[in-house]
Amino acid sequence: MRERDVMERYVKKLVFVTMVLISSPAVLLAIGADPNGSATLAADPTAAVNFAWVLVAAFLVFFMQAGFALVETGMCKAKNAVNILTKNFMDFSIGGLAFWAFGFAVMFGGSAAASGLGLGNKIIGYSGFFLSGAAYDVSTAELWLFQLVFAATAATIVSGSMAERTKITSYMAYSFIVSAVIYPIYGHWIWGGGWLSQLPFGAGAVDFAGSGVVHTVGGLMGLTGAAVLGPRIGKYDENGVPRQMPGHNMAYVVLGTLILFFGWFGFNTGSTLAATDLRISVIAVNTFLAGVTAAVVVVYWIYLKTAKVDLLAAANATLAGLVSITASCAYVPPWAAVVIGAIGGFLMLWGMNFIEKTLKIDDPVGAISVHGVAGLWGVLSVGIFADGTYGGVSGLIAGNTSQILAQAISAVVLVVYTLTVGFLTFYGLKKTMGLRASKEEEEMGLDISEHGITCYNQ
Amino acid sequence: MRERDVMERYVKKLVFVTMVLISSPAVLLAIGADPNGSATLAADPTAAVNFAWVLVAAFLVFFMQAGFALVETGMCKAKNAVNILTKNFMDFSIGGLAFWAFGFAVMFGGSAAASGLGLGNKIIGYSGFFLSGAAYDVSTAELWLFQLVFAATAATIVSGSMAERTKITSYMAYSFIVSAVIYPIYGHWIWGGGWLSQLPFGAGAVDFAGSGVVHTVGGLMGLTGAAVLGPRIGKYDENGVPRQMPGHNMAYVVLGTLILFFGWFGFNTGSTLAATDLRISVIAVNTFLAGVTAAVVVVYWIYLKTAKVDLLAAANATLAGLVSITASCAYVPPWAAVVIGAIGGFLMLWGMNFIEKTLKIDDPVGAISVHGVAGLWGVLSVGIFADGTYGGVSGLIAGNTSQILAQAISAVVLVVYTLTVGFLTFYGLKKTMGLRASKEEEEMGLDISEHGITCYNQ
Amino acid sequence: MRERDVMERYVKKLVFVTMVLISSPAVLLAIGADPNGSATLAADPTAAVNFAWVLVAAFLVFFMQAGFALVETGMCKAKNAVNILTKNFMDFSIGGLAFWAFGFAVMFGGSAAASGLGLGNKIIGYSGFFLSGAAYDVSTAELWLFQLVFAATAATIVSGSMAERTKITSYMAYSFIVSAVIYPIYGHWIWGGGWLSQLPFGAGAVDFAGSGVVHTVGGLMGLTGAAVLGPRIGKYDENGVPRQMPGHNMAYVVLGTLILFFGWFGFNTGSTLAATDLRISVIAVNTFLAGVTAAVVVVYWIYLKTAKVDLLAAANATLAGLVSITASCAYVPPWAAVVIGAIGGFLMLWGMNFIEKTLKIDDPVGAISVHGVAGLWGVLSVGIFADGTYGGVSGLIAGNTSQILAQAISAVVLVVYTLTVGFLTFYGLKKTMGLRASKEEEEMGLDISEHGITCYNQ
Repeated sequence: MRERDVMERYVKKLVFVTMVLISSPAVLLAIGADPNGSATLAADPTAAVNFAWVLVAAFLVFFMQAGFALVETGMCKAKNAVNILTKNFMDFSIGGLAFWAFGFAVMFGGSAAASGLGLGNKIIGYSGFFLSGAAYDVSTAELWLFQLVFAATAATIVSGSMAERTKITSYMAYSFIVSAVIYPIYGHWIWGGGWLSQLPFGAGAVDFAGSGVVHTVGGLMGLTGAAVLGPRIGKYDENGVPRQMPGHNMAYVVLGTLILFFGWFGFNTGSTLAATDLRISVIAVNTFLAGVTAAVVVVYWIYLKTAKVDLLAAANATLAGLVSITASCAYVPPWAAVVIGAIGGFLMLWGMNFIEKTLKIDDPVGAISVHGVAGLWGVLSVGIFADGTYGGVSGLIAGNTSQILAQAISAVVLVVYTLTVGFLTFYGLKKTMGLRASKEEEEMGLDISEHGITCYNQ
Repeated sequence: MRERDVMERYVKKLVFVTMVLISSPAVLLAIGADPNGSATLAADPTAAVNFAWVLVAAFLVFFMQAGFALVETGMCKAKNAVNILTKNFMDFSIGGLAFWAFGFAVMFGGSAAASGLGLGNKIIGYSGFFLSGAAYDVSTAELWLFQLVFAATAATIVSGSMAERTKITSYMAYSFIVSAVIYPIYGHWIWGGGWLSQLPFGAGAVDFAGSGVVHTVGGLMGLTGAAVLGPRIGKYDENGVPRQMPGHNMAYVVLGTLILFFGWFGFNTGSTLAATDLRISVIAVNTFLAGVTAAVVVVYWIYLKTAKVDLLAAANATLAGLVSITASCAYVPPWAAVVIGAIGGFLMLWGMNFIEKTLKIDDPVGAISVHGVAGLWGVLSVGIFADGTYGGVSGLIAGNTSQILAQAISAVVLVVYTLTVGFLTFYGLKKTMGLRASKEEEEMGLDISEHGITCYNQ
Repeated sequence: MRERDVMERYVKKLVFVTMVLISSPAVLLAIGADPNGSATLAADPTAAVNFAWVLVAAFLVFFMQAGFALVETGMCKAKNAVNILTKNFMDFSIGGLAFWAFGFAVMFGGSAAASGLGLGNKIIGYSGFFLSGAAYDVSTAELWLFQLVFAATAATIVSGSMAERTKITSYMAYSFIVSAVIYPIYGHWIWGGGWLSQLPFGAGAVDFAGSGVVHTVGGLMGLTGAAVLGPRIGKYDENGVPRQMPGHNMAYVVLGTLILFFGWFGFNTGSTLAATDLRISVIAVNTFLAGVTAAVVVVYWIYLKTAKVDLLAAANATLAGLVSITASCAYVPPWAAVVIGAIGGFLMLWGMNFIEKTLKIDDPVGAISVHGVAGLWGVLSVGIFADGTYGGVSGLIAGNTSQILAQAISAVVLVVYTLTVGFLTFYGLKKTMGLRASKEEEEMGLDISEHGITCYNQ
């Protein structure tokens, strides 16, 4: 009951603040810069194809929510399936409102990337709240949708690492916080015109489609969440040796991975924000090659050691390959995508092992390694493999030794920032709302205790 | 056997009429207005991006068939899974042929919306049958595909309300009728240049992407079907109190809902029929916000009452939010989408209760409330929240009191029309082919009785 | 162990050759023709919409991998589910690398279809390896991605026919061979400027989106694989009468079929390689009509004989209708798509029977008939129904008797070529790596024996 009271207060306050913010007639009835779009099209006839491109890409990225839901559900036990489905469903819903109200303004305020985003500094933005006023504009709306689905991706990565033992109401509170503040701040530093993008090395820190901004943020937030929670009951034996806890449906895992791969094409190619930027074809090729290479090398590597073809490793390797290429997809040639993907696959394997056996953090789906570790590799690899053909970004192979410096600084900042705010957030939630389900609830399964239903019936 | 004879006669007649209609050499060998497309492109170079936009949107809407199939299957019992899958599969197949042969001509004849659609009046259209003659044209084909997937959406909504007790052959006959005649007639009145669109209030009745045309038609047809059928065995106890009959797979429900959400972006944004109409970005944002807001408010509302996070309610609320915004998505600002979605979510909850407990109509998936009730709210909300920035449509918030009148008339007509033809259709089917499976078949499950197989095996 | 040694040698050799080929600094650091895209856009401003169109279509076709995985998994037994999922996952991964390294160069070398594809003759191509040198270009990358997903489709069709009894390592070796050499060679003859496309009849042999190039190649490769393997244990009784072996999840089959249908829109309409070719709308309409007509006629046909509505037949008929229209989708009017689809559906039924009962080849999912038989009908039907409105292709209905000759020659060559190299390949694999799992493994299920896990757990 206490928890519900906390919830109730929290909801009431939020509703109140929101109402005040958006209910002044000035805001409600303000007509934005170009909410209709005719002026924008007249000024730039290529806007039609570019809007179409970015929106379709955004739809594809949105669909990745289904991929995450399936991968995580398949890797968990049947008794927690409703719970993990609910987390995946509610995090983008709550996060979506948070990003509309606050997150987008924090991330892009001051970037002048579209109408109504004028206020902000190198650390934080503060304009574009609620897409109101001058932000009620077709270009701003286009940018918002694309950025929203990225925020939702970062947010949902965490549900996997914290699966099978987290209180759902606390998870929903986390969803709000990460989408309103945590994700947007580092995002502002890289994509909103913030200080990391202005580092005086190479082209400043770059991260084309978000290996770091999206995936490492999600992966390392997941690490802090899983660490604060502690492992699932039974994960480690009395000697601290981890036990295998197989998921309940591999078909969901494969379907989910393929949906993620499908959506990733939108994730990476849409990040040009324009179809008139024909580099989109090379980006798509690089995305594909990195994903499949990781699967192939990891599968054969494991086969040579165990004589088994490991489907779960193939799926996770593919995702790690995709995460790895996300930062560099626009800057590198296809052969480098193959190399980046292959290394990303092996790093994922190493990370999985390190997190489970050395750090003794229990990550039921491997999201920390897939997104966090491979994401860091992605950020760094830009500084190595960028060939200078695109965006003025050159790495070591093009004889430029300064870009790698910007990337390394960005990676260090990313790790320090995310671990710090992640631990603060989850520790705060633990001390207020409580973070972990009770022992009885966990053993019974969260579906019955938190939702009162089971996933499967006759 | 009697039923098969009816079927056989029905199929033979249909085949005969179809063959006569399309087999004259004049029709077969007629070369349409511009079947090649080069003249169309020469006359309008923006046709390329607009065709691409509308076709991709149509593909997304087509994919919603998978969403409906999964949501309904997940909410039904395993013993009826093949049956509900088959209904979802066959309704768009049969409906597709019906819309090709007849429905499109009834709906768009006289609209002059594309080549070969010249004949029709304010009540009904009658040109464009079989996409033949002058309707063999790239613009007509583009319009047909987009409209077809809408017709298929309306048709398939009904399968959910009538699930677990309907004879499949009668359901397939219904699919033909709804797509050939019932859906197109109201559609003609709103989108085909018919009388409701010409009402002398505001901009006439408008329904941007079909809250009413598609969803309320589907939802209320479902109401009539479910009412004529009666409830499933065991749904109500001896005192008329409804029993919970939980579905068999919540993962299907969530995946299906996410597929529907994904497809809805095409549904609403494609309804501009042009990417050169940059309002598409605002439409996409509004669609997203209405869907997620409904989920968030309904989930927290239920949580405050029951201390459970209700995944099924979240899914249905999301769909209700999406249905609600469908009519107004192009006309309202983002904050209004949030309000419309929230109200749509609560109306869905109220409707669900009212239909089950007061009307005592058994709707296994809640489609009547999700599509019918929320759809009516969507039609009305245009008259309240349209802000005048797009399409010359202004509602109460922009100081225009006449649009709401057109919307209200349209809503009343919609209810009266759909309930009338719906009851006539299902009552007619009941008296001829029979509508309901036998008690034995229902208890055994329709998979064995109607299909001779089970959905799940070792 | 012997097998792993073979594998190990094979992998090591491949890695070595690949490294040599791509590691020379000349290749690595070569800057392609226009890797950035600005020159290409400047030369042709419509490139933006055409790139967007082709890439989105390619993403949709990629997603068909999920459709194949689900259809095949649903039609197999639960004890082989991980195995069939793995095959579907690894074939496009391995095939993707093979097509990058070799296949694309074999297929399009000499076609001059894009930069870096200058070398090749009428029989085989030999430029564009590794997308390196002048093939590092935005137009070449765009073409590559679209062609890659087609190659992956052809490759994955085979896994169904060979399901439930094939050694996975041999299947993975096959994936490499088919994507590197077998598929590209016939593809070169039709799409790469090869000899069949230059036949002096009609417009030369044509196959718009690959009824023959993709589907018949896949289907007949599957025939040779299934024939060399022999039937599953228990498929035929002592009198050689086939037994029904029902699949384990019909929901996967339906979802998979709908995903394939969704992707097919990209498959067929993307094959214009341009959105400025407005015929895309007619192609989409034809695709839809052929698919649904096949389902409707086959379902009613079976219903009149058995009084059951056969969902599995509906799914396979839809796929057969789609395969049938793939070659002719751009050349025929909508009414002809209906006829082609209907005939394709019946041919699929006939083929299924013929292959199972007369040839006594065990094809667990019916892929040989769905893709091989319907694909041949698709190739031939171009010569009958092309109406001369597009691409200068006219068939019998337009009074041209020479196109059917080109199509017939192409079909004969296709059958002879595919059966020959298919038998050689699978016979070769049988004699070296071994092709079939042991009796014990097959009875236990391949999931445990090849992968060490089960698909479903608590």
